[in-house]
This record gives sequence, C-alpha cells and structure tokens, in this order.
Amino acid sequence: MTKTVKDYIRAIHDFPHEGIIFRDVTTLFADARGFRMAVDQLLHAYAGQRIDKVVGLEARGFILGGAVAHQLSTGFVPIRKKGKLPGTVISEAYQLEYGEAVMEIHDDALAKGDKVLIVDDLLATGGTADAAIKLCKRLGAELVGCAFVIDLPELGGRKLLEDQGVTVEALCSFDGH
Amino acid sequence: MTKTVKDYIRAIHDFPHEGIIFRDVTTLFADARGFRMAVDQLLHAYAGQRIDKVVGLEARGFILGGAVAHQLSTGFVPIRKKGKLPGTVISEAYQLEYGEAVMEIHDDALAKGDKVLIVDDLLATGGTADAAIKLCKRLGAELVGCAFVIDLPELGGRKLLEDQGVTVEALCSFDGH
Repeated sequence: MTKTVKDYIRAIHDFPHEGIIFRDVTTLFADARGFRMAVDQLLHAYAGQRIDKVVGLEARGFILGGAVAHQLSTGFVPIRKKGKLPGTVISEAYQLEYGEAVMEIHDDALAKGDKVLIVDDLLATGGTADAAIKLCKRLGAELVGCAFVIDLPELGGRKLLEDQGVTVEALCSFDGH
Repeated sequence: MTKTVKDYIRAIHDFPHEGIIFRDVTTLFADARGFRMAVDQLLHAYAGQRIDKVVGLEARGFILGGAVAHQLSTGFVPIRKKGKLPGTVISEAYQLEYGEAVMEIHDDALAKGDKVLIVDDLLATGGTADAAIKLCKRLGAELVGCAFVIDLPELGGRKLLEDQGVTVEALCSFDGH
C-alpha cells in the first residue's frame, strides 16, 4: 500500500516529558517523496488563491515554510521567539502551561493587504499560531489560512484559530497528545 | 540596475551586541525574486552532482534548506541545538567566544554513502558548520559541499571547513564582522 504523509511521521515516547507521545516530522521531511508530498498536499487546499507571502513559525515551520514559499514562488517571512530577529519588531505574548512566551515579527515584513499563508508542522493548543495570526493582522495582512502537517484535535487549537476567522488545514491528525 | 542577492541583505547595526553589524537575510528571503535567486544560485555550483539529502542548520538554515531540498526533490535533515531533536542523537561540541555549544543530528537521519549538501545562511567562524560536517561524517555520509548565502572571510570559517576536505560556496561576502 502507498505510504501516506501520516505513515512517515514517527512516534517518540516520553519526549519532551514522560507520558507524552511526540509526533516527529523529521522522518517525513527526511524522505524525498514524503517531503514533496507534504508540500503538494498542503497547497492543494489553496489552489487558485492569491498568496503573497508564506509565514513560517520557528523552528520546524521554517523547513516546511521555506519549501512551500519556494513551490509558490513567494517570499518567506519568519515569526520567531523573542530576541531572535535583528530588526525592529512587534510582539505578541501567549500562554504556556506554565508562564508565557512571546513571538515576534519584523514590523516591515508584511505590507497592508498582503495575502498571507501561515505554515507550521503541528497544531496543538494553537497558542503560537494564534499569536502569529495577531501579528500578521496588526501589520495589515489578510490571512489566507493556517496550514499544518499534524492536528492534535483534543488540544483544541483549531477552534482557537477559527474563532479569529481563519481557516485551518491539516494533513493528518492523531488522538491523544 | 538589477538587484543581486547581496543587495537584498539588510545591515542591522549593533545587533546582537554594540559594534556588530548583523547581516540580515530575512529581507532576502521575504522577497519572492530574491529568495528564488538565492536558491538557484546556490545550486548552480552543484549542477549535475548527485545529492541525496540537504542538511540545514538551526534556525535560518532551515528556511533556505527547506527550499533547496524542495528544488532538488531530496529529503531534508535538520541539525539542531542540544535537546531539540526528539529521537536518539549523536552530538558534537564546538567552541564559542565564551564557552561552548553542542549540535545534534538524529543517529538514523543519514545512511552510509549518502551524498549530503550542508546549507546555512552565514559562514562566520565556521564552528557550527564544522560540527555539522563531523556529525554527517560520523554517520558515514559523504559531503558534496557546504553552501552559504554570506561569507565573512575575516572570521576564517572557510579555511576551517576546507581543512576537513569540504568545498565551500557562498553567494556573497562582507568585510568586517
């Protein structure tokens, strides 16, 4: 039987903490056929739509986002953790299980009216992607959508993003965390 | 006059420390034409050579590496900072100005005889890329080369890598740090 995108994703038990099953996309990206299939399938949902910029989330979203931007012949814009971008930034904080984290984007990385596709490997609680949507909107960009390889539906990320009026696509999903 | 890759790179003064001019590739990657030109020119040097895997270095090397792997229709393998990869890894330490850092690769990410191209945005002292070469060699891979957007020749990275018998390509260079 032909392997699907999901078949290429490896389960790592007890990472980063005991009891967690980590869904490892590196085995998908490392396979020539798997990597290309993921990019192709991710873009299938947006066929015929205008996309001006692909926004990737640090760090695994950079791998996928770089490939997606190349496939679309668009530019790529990174959203990074606090302090990593060298130019003038705007910031959004979001809640973690304990404490909070901050994501940043260069304040000149997107122009008003830019059609933006946000890309990351995994949708869990959606905190990072939610902050990314807010950053893009603050720069006046319009969200074409958020695209992920994996959705973990039990963690509720999709609803959080859809509540901002953004459509969510994911290539596969896993039960449990 | 037509813009070159170098023309798209922005100079940020006093980042991350006072007195440093940081060469910011995000303005290159954010431009559709610039990003594609960088990928095309980077691969020009390897035309006709077999490349099985593109290895990208965290984090900006992921953006470029994802695009390069997509262009070549190969798989992409990340080399990351300590503790970020979920599976079983091998590690290499390298010297920083103060202290040391550790880079890691999954121990099953490359197979013996794989032809590997290492990709990163910037060659400075070469410590990270040198560790990456060692990691790839320890897994039995053969280095096709190391490709960078920017070389800072005064920092001596090129010699360090060439001393390992690896060819180095860079799209442009800047004087000073």
